[in-house]
Amino acid sequence: MHRAINFGAGPSAIPLDVLREAQEQFLDFNGSGLSIMEASHRSKLYEDVHNGAIALMRELYAIPEDYDVLFLQGGASLQFAMIPMNLSLGGKIQFADTGVWSSKAIKEAKIQGLNVEIVASSKESTYDHIPENIVFDDDADYAYITSNNTIYGTQYKNYPSTKAPLVVDASSDIFSYPIDWSKVDMMFAGAQKNAGPSGLTIVIIKKSLQSRVKESVPTMLRYSTYSAENSLYNTPPTFGIYMLGLTMKWIKKQGGIKAVQANNEKKAKLLYDAIDNSNGFYVGHSQKSSRSMMNVSFNIKDKNAELEGKLIKLSTQRDMIGLKGHRSVGGLRASIYNAMSIEGVQALVDLMQEFANENR
Amino acid sequence: MHRAINFGAGPSAIPLDVLREAQEQFLDFNGSGLSIMEASHRSKLYEDVHNGAIALMRELYAIPEDYDVLFLQGGASLQFAMIPMNLSLGGKIQFADTGVWSSKAIKEAKIQGLNVEIVASSKESTYDHIPENIVFDDDADYAYITSNNTIYGTQYKNYPSTKAPLVVDASSDIFSYPIDWSKVDMMFAGAQKNAGPSGLTIVIIKKSLQSRVKESVPTMLRYSTYSAENSLYNTPPTFGIYMLGLTMKWIKKQGGIKAVQANNEKKAKLLYDAIDNSNGFYVGHSQKSSRSMMNVSFNIKDKNAELEGKLIKLSTQRDMIGLKGHRSVGGLRASIYNAMSIEGVQALVDLMQEFANENR
Repeated sequence: MHRAINFGAGPSAIPLDVLREAQEQFLDFNGSGLSIMEASHRSKLYEDVHNGAIALMRELYAIPEDYDVLFLQGGASLQFAMIPMNLSLGGKIQFADTGVWSSKAIKEAKIQGLNVEIVASSKESTYDHIPENIVFDDDADYAYITSNNTIYGTQYKNYPSTKAPLVVDASSDIFSYPIDWSKVDMMFAGAQKNAGPSGLTIVIIKKSLQSRVKESVPTMLRYSTYSAENSLYNTPPTFGIYMLGLTMKWIKKQGGIKAVQANNEKKAKLLYDAIDNSNGFYVGHSQKSSRSMMNVSFNIKDKNAELEGKLIKLSTQRDMIGLKGHRSVGGLRASIYNAMSIEGVQALVDLMQEFANENR
Repeated sequence: MHRAINFGAGPSAIPLDVLREAQEQFLDFNGSGLSIMEASHRSKLYEDVHNGAIALMRELYAIPEDYDVLFLQGGASLQFAMIPMNLSLGGKIQFADTGVWSSKAIKEAKIQGLNVEIVASSKESTYDHIPENIVFDDDADYAYITSNNTIYGTQYKNYPSTKAPLVVDASSDIFSYPIDWSKVDMMFAGAQKNAGPSGLTIVIIKKSLQSRVKESVPTMLRYSTYSAENSLYNTPPTFGIYMLGLTMKWIKKQGGIKAVQANNEKKAKLLYDAIDNSNGFYVGHSQKSSRSMMNVSFNIKDKNAELEGKLIKLSTQRDMIGLKGHRSVGGLRASIYNAMSIEGVQALVDLMQEFANENR
């Protein structure tokens, strides 16, 4: 069996142990004679998987009792529309704009004709940092941030404090560090970076927020529908939820979220050190204070596209994939989500050092 | 390896050949060193899977050029809301009510405050037939039917003719017989019965219908968004689409949709003959003229719940699962979608005959 080192931004690497367990059970889950994807979502067989995934999420992520853990579909992009539908009270909604994904969320709120305010933005410097001292008004209907920005490789070190309900798009850093839930009222994420395959959206939301929704909102677009039916109002993406549960088991085996965080910090340090110690050969896109532990975006000095292309080509020859940067910043991007190993990062760092020495 | 005979209504049996191929490639798809669920949706690796699934659907189902094949999420339940959002012109919308799923679609259109008319219904006889001679007004914004009704085991033999655009919920009989596309303007289905795992919604829709949508509709809830981006506006449920592609390959290997249809008719005949030749011991829920080739719902005479329970218990001892009928009609329901083998049906028929002889 051949396994590549996957630096792709998403869908992205899944822990090998998780894939192996799913493969072993693929035709016969727990002796049932069924693949878990063939099981009715109303069966005990599946319900144990469903509730087990929720219970492990609650345990590992220390999610308080007054929050629901919900399984939706449609990715973060559908959340951009659902959040204003569910949480707007007709007042102002405030955003921090830290990249493409915040911008899309802002656009969707505007489509609904709502009063949208951007209180902070790093757009003018190609989103190379998280704005400092973001202040949301306490009387906003809600405040909105994107905790990690995959394209630019920036990440909040602390979430802003506000009395307005804070909504966090954690699509690219969920389960990578512990959360101070006293600061967060709703968190959501597509599963396909740190939690499983694409097609599953995780929503963690305070129960009290769910009563805001109007009766004119379609049933499937209300969080309260998912809450009332334990995300089983209709058929959920059962296989994705199963994979999420296996991923939670894997996190537990690693020692929990804090252990995963420590590992993530080690991996990121390896890469950022390689950039910082390259005598300017490599240039990180993010300002140092905003550097992401999940996505490391960098260029070769003077944005030398020829050398960048050469390095990407070399990396694929060493079986590293997904290193091409997003077109808006160019260069390279190493996505080092939870499932990426230290060994994988070390292989990239070795290549980077070798390449810098030869092409300086 | 242990494999049960799966009569579940959905998520339901997947062809063993499909599961085996997915299992083999689970850690290393086509020598890429990745599981297909780890591949970027923007990679050539995945795009070939995506476009291959669409091409095979078009070929096998003979979908005309002026229809788009789209991949969405959220199941049929989200379609119940999206269809009126996209197709209503402010005029009347007409439905045939043939069961729980039509009723839910009607409810969602009403939530949007639209002018909803039910032109035919079999509700008064517990949906035991498809109403005859359904007439939709030519000037309706659109007309809506549910082609197969899983709970009651009823199915349209012909779709109604109307000049209004006809929308068909084919969630439980897609890919089970050839379609006369001159009668259908939009067809949709959750994948989890005849086309793959849950979490993927297939929409086949005339291009010309998509321009009706208003700009106030959220981006992710417009069919035109999926059409413009080949269902890659955001990350699609990649693994589900891969499984759909494998299922299409399997259908082709069976000889195509007509061969699958012939097999389905054989399986259904076996079961309906067992009911009709039981001297009244078994009683089908559906009137004969409306019998479904996909779901066979039946009771034991006088709706004898004790005997029904005994038969269900016996069936599980013989490794047949999912035979308990829906609570609204009770009794038993054998779902015999494309993936169910003749041998599986024969095993059930044998048990039914044996049980009738012993308990008559």
